[in-house]
Formats: sequence, C-alpha cells, structure tokens
Amino acid sequence: MKGITFQNVGDNVEQFLLIKQSTKGITNAGKPFLTLILQDRSGDIEAKLWDAGDEDEKRYHPQAIVKVTGDIHNYRGKNQLRIRQIRPATASDGVSIGEFIESAPVAKEDMLDQLTQYIFEMKNPTIQRLTRHLVKKHQKDFLEYPAATKNHHEFVSGLAYHVLSMLHIAKSITQLYPSLNKDLLYAGIILHDMGKVEELSGPVSTTYTLEGNLLGHITLMINEIGQAAKELDIQGEEVLLLQHMVLSHHGKAEWGSPKPPLIREAEILHYIDNLDAKMNMMDRVLKRTQPGEFTERVFALENRSLYKPTIYEENQES
Amino acid sequence: MKGITFQNVGDNVEQFLLIKQSTKGITNAGKPFLTLILQDRSGDIEAKLWDAGDEDEKRYHPQAIVKVTGDIHNYRGKNQLRIRQIRPATASDGVSIGEFIESAPVAKEDMLDQLTQYIFEMKNPTIQRLTRHLVKKHQKDFLEYPAATKNHHEFVSGLAYHVLSMLHIAKSITQLYPSLNKDLLYAGIILHDMGKVEELSGPVSTTYTLEGNLLGHITLMINEIGQAAKELDIQGEEVLLLQHMVLSHHGKAEWGSPKPPLIREAEILHYIDNLDAKMNMMDRVLKRTQPGEFTERVFALENRSLYKPTIYEENQES
Amino acid sequence: MKGITFQNVGDNVEQFLLIKQSTKGITNAGKPFLTLILQDRSGDIEAKLWDAGDEDEKRYHPQAIVKVTGDIHNYRGKNQLRIRQIRPATASDGVSIGEFIESAPVAKEDMLDQLTQYIFEMKNPTIQRLTRHLVKKHQKDFLEYPAATKNHHEFVSGLAYHVLSMLHIAKSITQLYPSLNKDLLYAGIILHDMGKVEELSGPVSTTYTLEGNLLGHITLMINEIGQAAKELDIQGEEVLLLQHMVLSHHGKAEWGSPKPPLIREAEILHYIDNLDAKMNMMDRVLKRTQPGEFTERVFALENRSLYKPTIYEENQES
Amino acid sequence: MKGITFQNVGDNVEQFLLIKQSTKGITNAGKPFLTLILQDRSGDIEAKLWDAGDEDEKRYHPQAIVKVTGDIHNYRGKNQLRIRQIRPATASDGVSIGEFIESAPVAKEDMLDQLTQYIFEMKNPTIQRLTRHLVKKHQKDFLEYPAATKNHHEFVSGLAYHVLSMLHIAKSITQLYPSLNKDLLYAGIILHDMGKVEELSGPVSTTYTLEGNLLGHITLMINEIGQAAKELDIQGEEVLLLQHMVLSHHGKAEWGSPKPPLIREAEILHYIDNLDAKMNMMDRVLKRTQPGEFTERVFALENRSLYKPTIYEENQES
Amino acid sequence: MKGITFQNVGDNVEQFLLIKQSTKGITNAGKPFLTLILQDRSGDIEAKLWDAGDEDEKRYHPQAIVKVTGDIHNYRGKNQLRIRQIRPATASDGVSIGEFIESAPVAKEDMLDQLTQYIFEMKNPTIQRLTRHLVKKHQKDFLEYPAATKNHHEFVSGLAYHVLSMLHIAKSITQLYPSLNKDLLYAGIILHDMGKVEELSGPVSTTYTLEGNLLGHITLMINEIGQAAKELDIQGEEVLLLQHMVLSHHGKAEWGSPKPPLIREAEILHYIDNLDAKMNMMDRVLKRTQPGEFTERVFALENRSLYKPTIYEENQES
Amino acid sequence: MKGITFQNVGDNVEQFLLIKQSTKGITNAGKPFLTLILQDRSGDIEAKLWDAGDEDEKRYHPQAIVKVTGDIHNYRGKNQLRIRQIRPATASDGVSIGEFIESAPVAKEDMLDQLTQYIFEMKNPTIQRLTRHLVKKHQKDFLEYPAATKNHHEFVSGLAYHVLSMLHIAKSITQLYPSLNKDLLYAGIILHDMGKVEELSGPVSTTYTLEGNLLGHITLMINEIGQAAKELDIQGEEVLLLQHMVLSHHGKAEWGSPKPPLIREAEILHYIDNLDAKMNMMDRVLKRTQPGEFTERVFALENRSLYKPTIYEENQES
Repeated sequence: MKGITFQNVGDNVEQFLLIKQSTKGITNAGKPFLTLILQDRSGDIEAKLWDAGDEDEKRYHPQAIVKVTGDIHNYRGKNQLRIRQIRPATASDGVSIGEFIESAPVAKEDMLDQLTQYIFEMKNPTIQRLTRHLVKKHQKDFLEYPAATKNHHEFVSGLAYHVLSMLHIAKSITQLYPSLNKDLLYAGIILHDMGKVEELSGPVSTTYTLEGNLLGHITLMINEIGQAAKELDIQGEEVLLLQHMVLSHHGKAEWGSPKPPLIREAEILHYIDNLDAKMNMMDRVLKRTQPGEFTERVFALENRSLYKPTIYEENQES
Repeated sequence: MKGITFQNVGDNVEQFLLIKQSTKGITNAGKPFLTLILQDRSGDIEAKLWDAGDEDEKRYHPQAIVKVTGDIHNYRGKNQLRIRQIRPATASDGVSIGEFIESAPVAKEDMLDQLTQYIFEMKNPTIQRLTRHLVKKHQKDFLEYPAATKNHHEFVSGLAYHVLSMLHIAKSITQLYPSLNKDLLYAGIILHDMGKVEELSGPVSTTYTLEGNLLGHITLMINEIGQAAKELDIQGEEVLLLQHMVLSHHGKAEWGSPKPPLIREAEILHYIDNLDAKMNMMDRVLKRTQPGEFTERVFALENRSLYKPTIYEENQES
Repeated sequence: MKGITFQNVGDNVEQFLLIKQSTKGITNAGKPFLTLILQDRSGDIEAKLWDAGDEDEKRYHPQAIVKVTGDIHNYRGKNQLRIRQIRPATASDGVSIGEFIESAPVAKEDMLDQLTQYIFEMKNPTIQRLTRHLVKKHQKDFLEYPAATKNHHEFVSGLAYHVLSMLHIAKSITQLYPSLNKDLLYAGIILHDMGKVEELSGPVSTTYTLEGNLLGHITLMINEIGQAAKELDIQGEEVLLLQHMVLSHHGKAEWGSPKPPLIREAEILHYIDNLDAKMNMMDRVLKRTQPGEFTERVFALENRSLYKPTIYEENQES
Repeated sequence: MKGITFQNVGDNVEQFLLIKQSTKGITNAGKPFLTLILQDRSGDIEAKLWDAGDEDEKRYHPQAIVKVTGDIHNYRGKNQLRIRQIRPATASDGVSIGEFIESAPVAKEDMLDQLTQYIFEMKNPTIQRLTRHLVKKHQKDFLEYPAATKNHHEFVSGLAYHVLSMLHIAKSITQLYPSLNKDLLYAGIILHDMGKVEELSGPVSTTYTLEGNLLGHITLMINEIGQAAKELDIQGEEVLLLQHMVLSHHGKAEWGSPKPPLIREAEILHYIDNLDAKMNMMDRVLKRTQPGEFTERVFALENRSLYKPTIYEENQES
Repeated sequence: MKGITFQNVGDNVEQFLLIKQSTKGITNAGKPFLTLILQDRSGDIEAKLWDAGDEDEKRYHPQAIVKVTGDIHNYRGKNQLRIRQIRPATASDGVSIGEFIESAPVAKEDMLDQLTQYIFEMKNPTIQRLTRHLVKKHQKDFLEYPAATKNHHEFVSGLAYHVLSMLHIAKSITQLYPSLNKDLLYAGIILHDMGKVEELSGPVSTTYTLEGNLLGHITLMINEIGQAAKELDIQGEEVLLLQHMVLSHHGKAEWGSPKPPLIREAEILHYIDNLDAKMNMMDRVLKRTQPGEFTERVFALENRSLYKPTIYEENQES
Repeated sequence: MKGITFQNVGDNVEQFLLIKQSTKGITNAGKPFLTLILQDRSGDIEAKLWDAGDEDEKRYHPQAIVKVTGDIHNYRGKNQLRIRQIRPATASDGVSIGEFIESAPVAKEDMLDQLTQYIFEMKNPTIQRLTRHLVKKHQKDFLEYPAATKNHHEFVSGLAYHVLSMLHIAKSITQLYPSLNKDLLYAGIILHDMGKVEELSGPVSTTYTLEGNLLGHITLMINEIGQAAKELDIQGEEVLLLQHMVLSHHGKAEWGSPKPPLIREAEILHYIDNLDAKMNMMDRVLKRTQPGEFTERVFALENRSLYKPTIYEENQES
C-alpha cells in the first residue's frame, strides 16, 4: 500500500492513520467541524470532518488511530483527504502507534555500535573521555530525539542518524585531507547538536522547551561540556576547542554562532553539517516528485523549486 | 599642564610620559628608529626616535617612564610629538606609573559600596544570592578591568564604572515604568559584562585571552552563572532568566547574541547598555572638540563626525 | 466586566460595543454577510453577521454602538465573537462613544500642565520661545492625537502621553549625564513627533493625509519650525539644531532620517524615543499574557514572541 | 599644450598651474616639505616641494598661481609631478585664476536663456510661477555652483549644466511618453538640486556649510518651496507635488529620500538624474583612457573599472 | 463597452469573455465548483461557477469563449464577477480569440519596418550583420512574444514593442550624448531580451520552458550570439561587446547579471530598459486609478502605492 | 634550506630567488630605487634595492633569477628582505625558473591518468562523450593553469589539482548518498572551472583576459559546452543539465551564478567546490603559523584570523 503522501488526486483510500493534530472549527454557516492532520510513515495529510459534534471531538483526539475511507482531492494547490467513513481503531484491529511514526532507517542499537566505534578510534584521551562521558549521560535521548522540529531529520532518532551520516563523511574527508585532526572533528560532530535533547521536548510531537527558547541548544551544550570537564576534572585546550566547535557550528553570527569557526576542524564541521542536512531535505522532496517535474518550493532550501532530471538511471535510488 | 592629547600643533612640550608601545623600524635609508606611543591620563600620542641603537631599544621599553622635550606637529592628519630630548625617568624624579594611566573618576571602594547597595535592594532571594556570589568571586578583577579594549570605558575600572552608570539609569527607569522587575534588571546589568574578566587579559595593555577569542565574554559568563547555580544548589527560572539576559544583551544575532531579548527586562538592559556606551564615546570625542566644530570621524559611532554646538551654556560640562 | 480582548474561548458575552469597521461580503453560497470589527477600551474583536440584508448594512455602520449577545470561539488562531443577538443602542441605553475608545491614562489638562512646566524650565530663551509658540499653535491637536496609527501609543492623546513619558526619562538622564544640554533635549522631545498632527487624519479612525503620505511628519515639522522662526524673527543656531533633531530622530536613513544624529542630544532623543515606544508595545502585549506563557508574535518587535516570567512579584504591575 | 592630467610618465612639463591645496609635512629625517595639489582645467596633480622653509609655505598658498618646470613620474600607481623649478607667477606673466578652473562648456547667459525657455513652456500657472520665483531668487548662485563637491559635475556652473542636460532628456521623454506631465517634470528637474546653493559653500574650493551638514540640500529646498508658496500666497496640490519630487529624487530611504517616488514624474526625475550623472562620470574617466584599456576604478560607479572598446569610430567623441 | 477591469462594484455585466484559467474546487460543504479567470483586452477578473458538474468542467476549459451575465462585487479587496448566466459562444456569435487578447498597440509589420530602419542606420558592418542575422532567425517569435510573463509588457508582441520604445529613447539620448556608440547601443537593445523566445513558452498563456528555468534568457542569448558569430565566421571585439551587453543588462549580480556593465553603452542600455519597463508598469496601474487616489500596491514597483495627481491637464493621456 | 616565507625576522639569507615583480620608485629625497618581489616555491617577499640606476632596472626585470645576500626585518607588520648583496644568476649557477615556481604536488601525467579513470567510470554515454571531448580540447591548458589568480590553488596545475581533489570527495559522497547521479556530479566537477583556461592569461604571472573580464569563466564555459554539443551533434537533457551545473556552481546570484543550483548534483558540486577551496586556503596559512598562535587575517576567509591548536599530534600534517 502506498504511503498517504504518495496518493494522487482521485485515488481511493482505505487505511489506518494516526491523528497528529485535531482542531475544532465553525463553518461560515455556523456548523462545527474538525480539521484533522492524519499521518502514516510517509508523512501527513489534512482532512475535514464535517458536522462534528462534541462526541466526535473527544473521539478523534491527537495520538488516536483511525480507519478512514475516502478519496484524495486538491484544495488550493495541496492534497486533502475527503473522508467518507471514519472510525476509531479497536484492539481487534491490531495496529499500534509505532507503525505510523517515521523513524531513522537504522536501528538504535546499530547506531550506538557505530558511534562507539568512532569514539574508540580517537587517540587523544581527553577528547575521548569527554565525548564518551557526554554520550553516556544523554545516551537514551540522543538515540531517540529528532535532529529538528522541521526541515531535516525531523523523525524519531533523526539526531543520531544525522550525526552518523556526518561521521561517515568526516571519515572520508580526514583521509583525503590528512592535516585535519580526526579526534577534534569526530568529537565536534558527536557533540554539535547534542544540546537538542534539552532544547526539544521529546521524540514525538516535538516542541521547544523553555530552556530551548531562552538559551538554545548551542548555549545549553557549551554549559554541558563545561560541567562535564569539571566533573571529570579535565583541564586543557581540548575543552575550550570542543566548546568552540559547538559554539561556531552555525558558521556566522546571523545564523546563531556568536563566533565564526576559528579552527580548521570547526570550519569543516560546519560544511559537513550543511551538506548532510541539505541532502536529507533534497531527497525527501525529490522522492515525491516525478522525473521531468519540478518540486514544490522548499522554504529551507532558499525557497527553491528543484528539478528532477529524466536521465536518472534505473538502478539509482531517487 | 594640559594633557598630551589637548596640545595643539606648534605647542612646546616638556613633560613625563609613559611608554605604552615601542616598535623598532628601519628608514628607507636603512637606519633603525623607534616608534613610541607615549601616554598620560589624557590619552596617547605617537613619536619617532630617530637613529635609535640597541641601547635605546632596551632603554625605551613599554611601561618605562620618560621625560620628553619636543613640539607637536601634524603628520597625515594626526598629531605627532617631535622629540628633541628624551631620557628615562629616575627615582629622583618621583613619578610613578599610576599617574599616567587613566582610570574611572570614582574610587573602587566607593563603587563597591554602591554596588553592594543595589544588591541589597533586591527582593528576590535567589537573584540576590546568585549575584552576590558572582560579584564576590570576581570582585577584585571586576573593580579593576576596563569595559573594553577600545571604543568605550577602555580605562582602569571602566567595567565597574559602566555597570554603575547603567544601574543609576535603571533606577530611574524602573520608577517611571513600574511593570519592570527591578531585581532582574539590576542583576542583569551587574552580570552582563562580567565575563570580560575572563575575555580580557587585565586592567592595562589589555588584549584578548584565548578563551576570549574562541568563546567570548557572553558565553563565558553563561557558564559562570550555570556553575554558580550548581555550587549554591539553586534551581528555578531565575537562573535561566539571568543567563538569557546575559546571552541576549547585544540585542541581535549579527551583534553577537544568538537569542534576541525575549523578556522585557532583557530588552531594557540592551537599551541602557547602548545608551551609556554611546554617551561615553560621545563625551570623550566632544571634549577634544571646540564649539562650532565637527569631531573627527568615530568608527564605533557608525563613522559619524559629530557637531559641537556653540550654544552650550557656560556652566554646562562639555 | 472584562474587556472584550480579555475574554477567553467559550465565554458568553453580553455587552455594548462600538463598530470600528463594517465590510460587506458574499459567502461561497452567494449569501451576503457583514464582517464587523467591534471594540471597547480593551481593544477589538472580529464578528460575522450572517444573512445581512441592505437594512443591516445601513444599521451597522462604523461609529455605531451595538448591544451584542454571543460567545467567543477560535477561528484560525484568533478569537472571534459569534453573534447570537445584535441590536443598535438607543438613547435610553445611555451609552456614548467615549466609553469605547481608549485614551491616555492621564487627563489632557494635567498633561498640558506638565508640558508647560518642562518648557518653563528651559534657560535658552530662543529655544523656549520657539517651543512655546509651536505648542500653542497646535495645542488642541497635540493633546488629542495618537502617536501612531498602530504599534505604539495608538490611542486618543497618545502623542502627548508619549512625549511626556520621554520628558520624564530625559529629566533623569540629564541629571546623570550633565554634559547634555537640557533645553535642546526637552525641546527636541516636544517637537519630534508634532508633525503627526498634519500627517494623521485625527484622533480616531486615524489614517494618513495626503501631506502625510507624500512628505511625512518629519519633513512637515521641519517646515513648521522654519516658518515659526520666520514669524518670530528668530535667527541663530538654535533653529538649525532643533530642525536637525527632528530630522534625525529616526536614527538612520533606512528608517526615514536622511541625516543621522550629529549632536549628542539628537542621539539621546533617538534612544529615549525607542525606549518609550518599546516599553509601550511590550506592556500591552504582556498584559494579555499569563505568567509562564509566551505572547503572540509582534511584528513591530522584530516579530518576537516575548516570555512572561513566573517570578514577577505580586505587587508588580504586569 | 596638453592639460596636466593628460601628461604621461616621463613627459617634461613647463607651465603655469594653480595651487589648489598646500600642506606642510616633515620627512622621516625631520626636514619640512610641502605637498602641493596643482591644477589646470584638465584636473589636478600632486607634487612635493622638498626642503620648504617658512618662506615657501607663505609663498605657495592655495589660490596662488605658479610656474613649474619638472617631469611626470609614477608614485604608488598615481602620477606625480616632480618639481625641478618653481616660482610664483607675476603680474607680467599675464595669467589669471579663471584660466585654471574648469567650468561648464556652455556660457551662463546661454544656460539662463535655455532655462527661461523651459519655464516659458509650462502650462500650469502655479508651477510656472513658483519655479520662476525660485530661479530668480537664487539665480546668481544657481548659475555658478557645481552640482557636487566630487563624483559628477564638480565644476563651476556644474549645477545649471546638469539641470539643463536633464531638461533636454526630459523633453525627448515626454514626447515618447505622453502620459507624463511635462510641467511637473520640468519644474522638478529645475528645483531638485537647487538646495545645493545652501548646502555647499560656493563655486570653488567647495565644502559643506553647517546647514548642509545638519539638514542637507533636500530638506533645505523643501523649506524654500514652502516659503516661496507662502510669499506668493499659493495653495494647492502643486506645492505638495513639487516638494514631494524634491524629497523623493534620491529614490530610496537609504539613499537619502525618506519617501520613495510616489508619482510617475518623480520616478522619471530620479532616472534622468542618475542617467546624466553617470554619463558625466563615465565620460570623464574614459576621456583619460586609451581604447583597448580599462579605466582606474571609480568609487562612485560602484568601484567598477570600465573598458574602452577599440571599435569606437574616428568621428565619435570619446 | 467598458473593459472588464474598468467595471465598478455593482455594475451589471453582459459580454463575451475568454477563459484564461479554469480550476476545479470543492466547497466546505463538499460541492464541486469552478474558479474561472475570464479576460478581455483590458485584463482579467475572477468568477466562481457554483455547482459545476463534470459537464461544466469540460465545457468551460481554458481558451474557450463564453457569454456571461452577472454583476461585479468585492471579495477580500478585489473585484469578482458574480455569474448569473453563462454559456459557451457559438459560431453564430461571430467572436474570435484575437478579440480578447491584449497585444501591442502597433502592428507587427510596422514594428518590423521600424526595426529594420534602426538596423539600417548602423555603420559598423559586423554589428549590423550579426544583429540582422539574429533578428531574421527569430523574426516570427520576436514579433509575437511578450516581454515577460507578468509585471511589464506581458502582452502579445510585448517584446518587440518594448524593444522599439527603448530604441526611440536611445535615438534621443545618443543625440544628446555624442560620446555614445550608436551601433552598440542599438544592437544591445535589439538583442538584450531576445533570449525570451527560448525562455518563454509562447505568446499566450506564457510559462517558462525547462531551458528558461535552468539557464535563463541571458545565458541562452549569449549562446545564440556565439553561435551566430561562428556561423557567419565573424571574429573581433564586437561579438564580445554584444555578449557583454546582454550579460550585464540587469545591472548587478543580485539582479541576475554576473558581470556589471563595464562599457558605457551597457550602462545606458540598463537605464533605458528600466525606464521603459517602469513607465509601462506605472501607466497600466494609473490608468485604472481616479485622480486624487492612490493605486493598489504594485510588487514590481517595490510594493509602492502610487498617487495620481488631480492637476493632470485635460488633454494629457493618463 | 627553509623557503623564503618561512624565514624569521633577523635570519640571514643567502639564496637564489626569482624576480616576480620589479617597480621603480623615487625616495622622498629624489633618489631612484627598485621594489622587488622575490619568490621561491614557498611564496614571495618584498625587498628594496636602493640607489638603483637604469642599469639595475634593466638587469633586475621580472622572470630574472638573482642571488641575494641579506637579512629579514619587519616593516609595517610584514617581513621584508633587506638586500646586502645582489647579482643576476649566470649559466654556471645551474638554476632554472622551474625551481622557483610552485606547482601542484602531483605530476601532470598522473593527474591526467586519474582524470581519465573518472571519465571512464561514467555510464551515461552522452555525458561521457561530452566531457571527454572538452577535456581533450583543452587538455594542455587544463593541466597547467592555476585555479585562480589568488586565494586558493593559485599555482601551476592548480586547476587540475583542485578538480581531482573534488573528484575524490565526490567519490566518497556518492557512495554515502546513493541518490546522487555520479555521472552528472563527476562531469560537473570536471567542467565547472574549465572556462578558466579562457578567463586567465596562463599558468604564471596570471592576469585576466578581456574575455575573462567582460564575460567570466562561467559564461565562457557554457558557450563551450553548447558548441561541443553542436560539434558532436548531441541533443538531450544532458547538455542542459551540465550547462546548468556550470552556471549555478557559485551558488547564488550575488556570488556570480544567475541561477541557483536547481538539481541535487549542482547543489553538492557547490559544496564540494567550497570545501576544497577552503581547505586549501586554511592549510596554506596554518602552515606558516606556530601551534598556539593565530594566523594573519585572511580576506578570502571572511577576514578571519584562525587559531592553530597546540594539541595537534606529532604525526599529523599541519
């Protein structure tokens, strides 16, 4: 069965979906209705439930699973699901929330193994100890949180998945440019977004915490590194360098880094971060686009509308 | 005797001066010479010592006091001191370094008293305790450091003097706008630039430390607040709010604050900081300007050249 | 009774309101309706009157007072008033327009007294005469106009109220910084926005005049000062300095001041203007926000959403 | 004889020149010298007079005419005149200042005639009267002042010459686009820079007046128009429209116009002003450049270095 | 009969119109409807066709002509046509598509004659040959395409009409400034936007081609010039200069020209292009505005709302 | 022997150097001298040759090799070589120009082999044919030209070396992100800067050609691709896609790409280009810096001064 975001206008739909959001409204004629955002792993779609009474409002709340029959139509340039029938899922349906939530394509355990391996390869004991300490401290959240609330890697375990992709690139690049210090670069990558576990509310229905709003993940993480160094009684340039890498990884003051990268590894960290984020954004939007067509405009890609060439070979992932 | 920066072209000079900087050079004709920056409390002036041998280089080092006879001439639009005679000061001259260094016009003890009074007026015990703890920890440096290496309050005790001027304004403003929380505003002002004691090297010949270059005073201070809270075992919104005030006091990302002010008191702190800094810059440059004239261009004032009106009344400070 | 903007979703409403705006519309189904903006002193709210015939259109015109029964619901993230019953107010209801319009919290006579006192304190006779002349000429409008059509002090007598708040700050600041010329600063504050009485249409339902659109209040006021000087046969630097203060009070070319502040008092005028405007904006939006919550985004505050701390003490205005 | 700016490196020079600027300096070896800026109608050149005593300083003052023998050499990428012999001109030399100062290529009387003709063609009596009044009031200065202190039309009578070039273009353009109001456009062109007669100090050695610095020519001219309307007892939209055209002729706030052009004729005025200024700048710099070469960088042309094609035909002015 | 865009709210309409766009929609209540964009030569207007079945969808397709009876009402600040009756035009109605499409006010043959004359006047044989060759190659499209899809000259033959207006201005300007090379300027104008015939899809319902999206008309045209030179076996600076003029005609990198104008004629081409485009935009929007009123905001005119003076004389086109 | 740029102040120097530039000057005292820029493979240094007569000027011309004895001193913050003895190299010295010119650390033949291998791996025959054709056409220059005149890879064979580094990164990245089309990315990298062989004058003493100045390497290369396609009689999307990749590789209009990257591979090409250029810049400046020190400010790195950590391990290249 095709995911809900891959359905085309006119397609008939009959499937289970998870309610992501439910908002009550009133028609011009004064009748109540519900605007539902329904999701499966492929993404989400809007649907209207007309003449929805108080009962319906209670029944169709966020995190509820529903079975829906209907078809896809186009409303102001976006697909909508027109509901013909809807009912809450029951125990006998045998469906669970996990089936409807997107998460990283690699298992948490595997990601942890890989991460451990990268830390193991470090030669500078201070950097290694500090990194291991912080990964251990935040291990559970680090493996479950998304990398952002939207734009890129905004799925369960997106943070760890993003970090591992970056580490793989870093491995190649340090081989090509031997002047780079591998320990600094690996540790910087592992720590750069770890503050997200304090900035964001959790792996699903993610919002910003008060700390996140008032300080942000960069500042939160620098505090964490400072505290870790204190607890481990570590002194030396390493602590300062890692704090600097986290501080500068957005690249410019206007992008949120009060200091620009001032060491080689910080500059490269910034590049790798961008490269992996952009690849993720582009892949997602191109996946939903036919060869020979342009994608919708993507705000986080400077509002560009990308083209999907027709020449992509058969055996290429798209 | 007029200070060295108030001498005009053609004036004869015979006075003691402190060597701030001494750089060796070679004339086009291959002869060695020294470029000396000489200062008294009014500021500094450049002078050339021609045909300066190795002996001279040793004798005329930074922090040495010299007696100079010469006159003022203009070189490329700036005043220079042409040296006719120069000799190192001797014990019998009875001059000491302190006489040549500018410092705040209020004694350190008095500033500490005033500061203590402002802390005493706070009603929120958490804010009070945290502020008192940090003032105590950095007391000596806080009372001696400049507020910056150039532009404004760049003199001994300039940091404390700047903070106290801001507190005086804050006192008036909280009376006029009772919706402001006085405790937050006072504490924010006291802490906002305290990170300078780690960012800068010391009260004289001030440069940036490695921490200052790689992290900056804002980040350093947020760490300090976090650590202080930990040591005092303080939790609660107050810690977060004070960290936010320090973080946001430059007002915008492109000016070095990754988060803009998000609470009322943070916004007002930003305004008061600017107001006091600008007053200090303007006063200094206008002091050296005659009524009816324009000042030199001042880079930190958006490269403006200010006008000094002729109508200023007699009894007005200028 | 709570003001209309303090009602929550679900609240029942039965009160008199003033129609601020009335616009005819057609439903998708071709039926006419009215969109009403209804206001009391707390602010305004939108309401739809369905199936509104020509009679209704005539009856429910701007400036009419109506009695409305209904309840509050949420439409696209904003509160709306759902009308159950509506009727025009009659003479016997004993309500008048003044009750529904917000105005400054200080009486016009009191503001005039305070203003007169500030002018009285001036020592420079030229500045004093010019200021007194212009205040007298525009006295009635100056005491009744708002300071803007939106964003800050957009209420009856907002202009004079804004000017007086600024004068109070100026008084404190000139005491703290004696190098400032009090006469220039006071006069600059009093005159800086006086051109609004020509730029804007009047104290209520305020729009821009043709002069306002094509020249703006700054240019209009500089003309006024020039003309006043001519009528009073005043010459001298004072006229030029006051014109410059008005010209430069927006601070930068891109904000509408072709010359930046070039005298100390003009710079400080710009700061005080900003400080008072921002305080007014922040107070208004925070008043409608619960402690521990963020406000809606405010465009004129660089689109920020401010946080209202939970620690505000009981006896603090919020 | 070639003008001084057309001499090449190595050329011998023997001619009369006017001293535009004279500045005393001191060599590294402590010897006094004079830096002279010497000019004829083609432009100016720098020269050093070594070992210049007090006598020389008095003798070689600005506005003095001198006879110089020497040759051209290159110093840091710019031509300099190396002086071999120099003496002040005497009465018997029969030279006068006017011979060394550049001025518009059309006589003042002819420009006045043309200007009168354009005013004569206006059909709207209010616009015509106002324009005639202001031209009459400032006639002498208007015909003698430069259009700027540098960049374009910075020569005697440059202002009137610039205005007439613009009027000629306006004549063509109003024929091609009959929707344009000729009276507004002509009057706007004539008045747009007339405030320069108050902003600038005079036709030669031009600097900014205090009014020019604090208010600028745009604001000064709007005052003039307002006052003229008052004196002539003129009311009506015409006054406002002309003030708007002057106010908006720099096109954008950041270029000094607080209001952008809001009427068609104001927009076109802005374009014509730019076109004529750019043509003047380009012609001057290309005149000194050989075909197939690039010009020096010109700051006012966005720092471009223009190319002079080799294909320009013989009979084309270059 | 007034054109459809000149009808006012409340006017009854009974006329033939061309369907420019037809989009199916679903009301909140689940009923299908069509949103039609209907046009005549004066422009277009939106209309809703309620309860539109599949039959209607087929009948009312783009490029179909319909007879409509209805009236004008206002929906969210824009005029809409409320349809009372609608039917497809039949053969017996005797109407054809050409009657509903705006095109240049000059016949294609006349434009070609004028163009030929301008090319004939060129003296440089290389420039003339190259220009003639390219005009000939694209003659049909060049005479039929619009100059853009929106903003200015977005009508049939708009491209040629824009080019001819520019040539007329160029003729005047080369007379006023004889230093300009007429051949370069004329050829640059003729070629500057010729790449639009590859960038755009055709004279009506114009969209961007894939080449247009990925390369743009500037790059496409430079290729064309290069190829033409190759075919004609032309070498020399002329080819390079014309390519440069096309490349730089947007004036700045951020406006799409990787090189700014580096020859005098390129700079002037840029100015003339802007002037004619702006005149076209302003004339169109002012035509629909009453004297004494402001126009709607126009995005391509920096979002300005222009004023139409009341003083325009009777015999002036508006 | 240490390269000339690695000498410290005070070091004695006795070595052969190549004259890169020779400029005649005149001292203040009127004596002629030569400013020589002398280079070896490590970079260049300035030196003054005092009292240099016409003979010296002829003898010490660019491209001449000289033997110099002298020492290093500091002049205005930069190292200078003070010449004690200098003489032209003679045949018996056995030195040749090649010894003094920096070039890529890989031999041209090896680079060509690698390049051929990358082309060999392409699967799309059109892309492969087009790329091979263009490499063949420009093979000699492509293997010898620098990648730029300054900032990065500004040495002999820098262009090919830069391209190969990029290809190596691309190889890794296409393995990590299988959605990328390897053929497009490889071909885009190989062609992206190939236009430099027309934009620049040659492998040494590199300047811009007229084509380079007026059109730039991007436009020149798009022409080349178009022409190659014509010659090979190739049609299809591939040509357009490769032209787009070259066109967009600077990433943004203000950086010289009129179209931003609109296909995934173009975006990644832009990133890889930046990454390799930045690595090259950083490596060069850090090589000349001691651990624990900051580098000089580098304009092309946003004027940053980079820090070289002290923790770099022994066996790490720096």
